[in-house]
Amino acid sequence: MAQQLPEYAIIVAGGSGSRMQHDVPKQFIPVAGKPILMHTIERFYNYNPTIRLIVVLPKEQLTTWRELCKEYNFTVFHMMVPGGATRFGSVKNGLDAVMGDGLIAVHDGVRPFVETETIEAAFEAAANFGSGVVAVSPKDSIREMTPEGSKAVPRANYKLMQTPQVFKAGILKKAYEQSEQDYFTDDASVVESIGETITLVEGSYRNIKITTPEDLILAEAFAKV
Amino acid sequence: MAQQLPEYAIIVAGGSGSRMQHDVPKQFIPVAGKPILMHTIERFYNYNPTIRLIVVLPKEQLTTWRELCKEYNFTVFHMMVPGGATRFGSVKNGLDAVMGDGLIAVHDGVRPFVETETIEAAFEAAANFGSGVVAVSPKDSIREMTPEGSKAVPRANYKLMQTPQVFKAGILKKAYEQSEQDYFTDDASVVESIGETITLVEGSYRNIKITTPEDLILAEAFAKV
Repeated sequence: MAQQLPEYAIIVAGGSGSRMQHDVPKQFIPVAGKPILMHTIERFYNYNPTIRLIVVLPKEQLTTWRELCKEYNFTVFHMMVPGGATRFGSVKNGLDAVMGDGLIAVHDGVRPFVETETIEAAFEAAANFGSGVVAVSPKDSIREMTPEGSKAVPRANYKLMQTPQVFKAGILKKAYEQSEQDYFTDDASVVESIGETITLVEGSYRNIKITTPEDLILAEAFAKV
Repeated sequence: MAQQLPEYAIIVAGGSGSRMQHDVPKQFIPVAGKPILMHTIERFYNYNPTIRLIVVLPKEQLTTWRELCKEYNFTVFHMMVPGGATRFGSVKNGLDAVMGDGLIAVHDGVRPFVETETIEAAFEAAANFGSGVVAVSPKDSIREMTPEGSKAVPRANYKLMQTPQVFKAGILKKAYEQSEQDYFTDDASVVESIGETITLVEGSYRNIKITTPEDLILAEAFAKV
């Protein structure tokens, strides 16, 4: 635990199985014997057993999730909140469940390999600077698409964003009072748009977002080592 | 095969084991029973059995590579060329081995999962437009680092570069006549700097560059499916 403010994690699991070519929503696909979302929740519980966990799921998946928790005897305490039409709406619904001061992490439900040290560093940065947003350096060269074609850009000038993205409660709530914009692709972009600066925290290449069938292969392999 | 011009592939394998935390150079690490570099070479051979393969290796690894080829009974015909001090120098050495007209692919030795369709699409684009450079869309949100801090940028405007990067021989050779610059991070950036436009070709998330221990886990998993 970074400090004395209460800590929250809003775990957003709004996905369907479509990009995954899978009939089960991706957060419910079993990896190493249990649904991905359970691994994710356990990571935050292991970081801080007193963290307040808020799991945001599409309304129509809440019953399935309850049944899965029973089936897998999954007893980590968490709140369930129905999701919105978009990720922005889902985070907003999660935020509505949080009262008072504290530090709030927003995390993708399908990033089950986040390390304790990463969560800790993000909370610590948020306690000290208002935000702690996990990012890694790109391994590949980058090109920018322009109306005139594409052009090479220096990759050292870019970061690929991961989660958790942790903020002081007041900042995050204020940011989510505005209406949704197309350029909101993560919580940092939402918070930045109200004039807050973003503090980056070094992530890890293991902290993958399970999105495609390739990721699922990697997830099974990671879960074994 | 995209067309009638002779086709070459310069496979650049200049890595050491340092970032991999492995005592063997990464291109020689066995995946699914044989060194990564052999898988990579086979991908190009499978695409076009008459392709001219030029494998660039650090001078001090040439003997090891010969022994590995014997040990694994690896008989895909290829030229060996000693590498330079940098990737730029290594590609240049490979190019010096190519005479006359044709299409030249430059490919990372540690990208063993490139699909036949990707190689084919890159050669076809190069035949038609002068270049065919493989890239994928980033899955994560992107931030640009500026002197004032970081700022969110629209990820749809960016591409992460992979290989193969295929060019008409004349263009690539001309580009590599200049001196090396810090901002040359791939062949497309070298070619672009002499005023050529770059044609992008859609890559695949399976076409990973094996760089870190995490990648090696994924590679073993990919090799099984």
